[in-house]
Amino acid sequence: MTEQPRPVVTAFEWVPEFARGLVRDLRVRWALEEIGRPYDTELLNARAPRPEEYLARQPFDQVPAFTDGDLQIFETGAILLYLGEQDERLLPAGGQARWDAIAWLFSALNSVEPVVQRITSYDIFFKDQPWSPGAREGVLGWCTQKLKRVNDALEGKDWLAGQFSVADIAMITVLNILRHTDIVGQYPALAAYKARGEARPAYQRALDAQYADFTPEPA
Amino acid sequence: MTEQPRPVVTAFEWVPEFARGLVRDLRVRWALEEIGRPYDTELLNARAPRPEEYLARQPFDQVPAFTDGDLQIFETGAILLYLGEQDERLLPAGGQARWDAIAWLFSALNSVEPVVQRITSYDIFFKDQPWSPGAREGVLGWCTQKLKRVNDALEGKDWLAGQFSVADIAMITVLNILRHTDIVGQYPALAAYKARGEARPAYQRALDAQYADFTPEPA
Repeated sequence: MTEQPRPVVTAFEWVPEFARGLVRDLRVRWALEEIGRPYDTELLNARAPRPEEYLARQPFDQVPAFTDGDLQIFETGAILLYLGEQDERLLPAGGQARWDAIAWLFSALNSVEPVVQRITSYDIFFKDQPWSPGAREGVLGWCTQKLKRVNDALEGKDWLAGQFSVADIAMITVLNILRHTDIVGQYPALAAYKARGEARPAYQRALDAQYADFTPEPA
Repeated sequence: MTEQPRPVVTAFEWVPEFARGLVRDLRVRWALEEIGRPYDTELLNARAPRPEEYLARQPFDQVPAFTDGDLQIFETGAILLYLGEQDERLLPAGGQARWDAIAWLFSALNSVEPVVQRITSYDIFFKDQPWSPGAREGVLGWCTQKLKRVNDALEGKDWLAGQFSVADIAMITVLNILRHTDIVGQYPALAAYKARGEARPAYQRALDAQYADFTPEPA
């Protein structure tokens, strides 16, 4: 049996403090760590435009882009789905269980992340704008409504789709975008779920690996 | 051969004018029309809470939820992927072509829709708020940057992933959220692409069907 090629994940060689632990290559690293699949990283400069040819691999000029042998995939959701299809520890192989996990994967990225990102954009990117507190207040109810729905769906369950899956990798990393607030803590099942996910050794290894790839700040 | 059961799509029996043609059951109807698969709709009241048991089918209390025989799926992205896996006219069956289409499906829902929705929320839901113009201006550049990237990726191509796919159903209906603005029109390849998609007979049939299901306004 020939050795499986190592997939390659693009990541940034440096990001500001507020983004460390949130950059999306973490999601792909976590999935790879869960199945014990070794990978290489290709580090890109976050402080300068990427080479023009990178757009062919990642049309939005972001990370991660993913290469596995001859296959190239962009968008974290697609990469997670791909890895899930390789290994049932990340995604049930068929039937209702598979579609539950896929539905929750899309929920994390299309129902929850958009409102969570809005809160964080007002708190961090736009924090000095006079309109920012009003805009944050306007959308806070939309955010908490989504979080309450996920909280309620988790009552009596350890993971969104029964067994641990890529849906949990997406949802837990999405919830972490609110780590500078106490919003998630208002939902006990949700907060316990996030802690449960972040206690997984594979998450810790992925997080350590992302931090280890950042260039030290100049002294 | 026994007849295939008709899938069921949930939709609203009425929505305000600004939402007609945008409610997400349209995306599922369009996919079903492309493959000529008859379906039933189950109409829900948009003006009152849905029955508590609906949350088991759609945890965010939204439409569409989808039933096909014994299988239940929520999240439009998941339903589109499911239908794509049934029919190669909606999604190539394997290899790079399949992953290109899936990556663009996630792009539509996780990279593009969130910023597009923000613009529309300021223009419609929050239009009377004093902070709304500032918040819109703050995020407009993020929106146009994403649209420019999709525009550039479409140069010389009819569809995002080569052949028409569920990615185009998602992206074109996402772009339509900006129909009250001239933003998409600033990107020629993108505007031509949107027109190309909306000219498809299956899109027109889906749109007609969504409108036909709305209860007439009281006289």
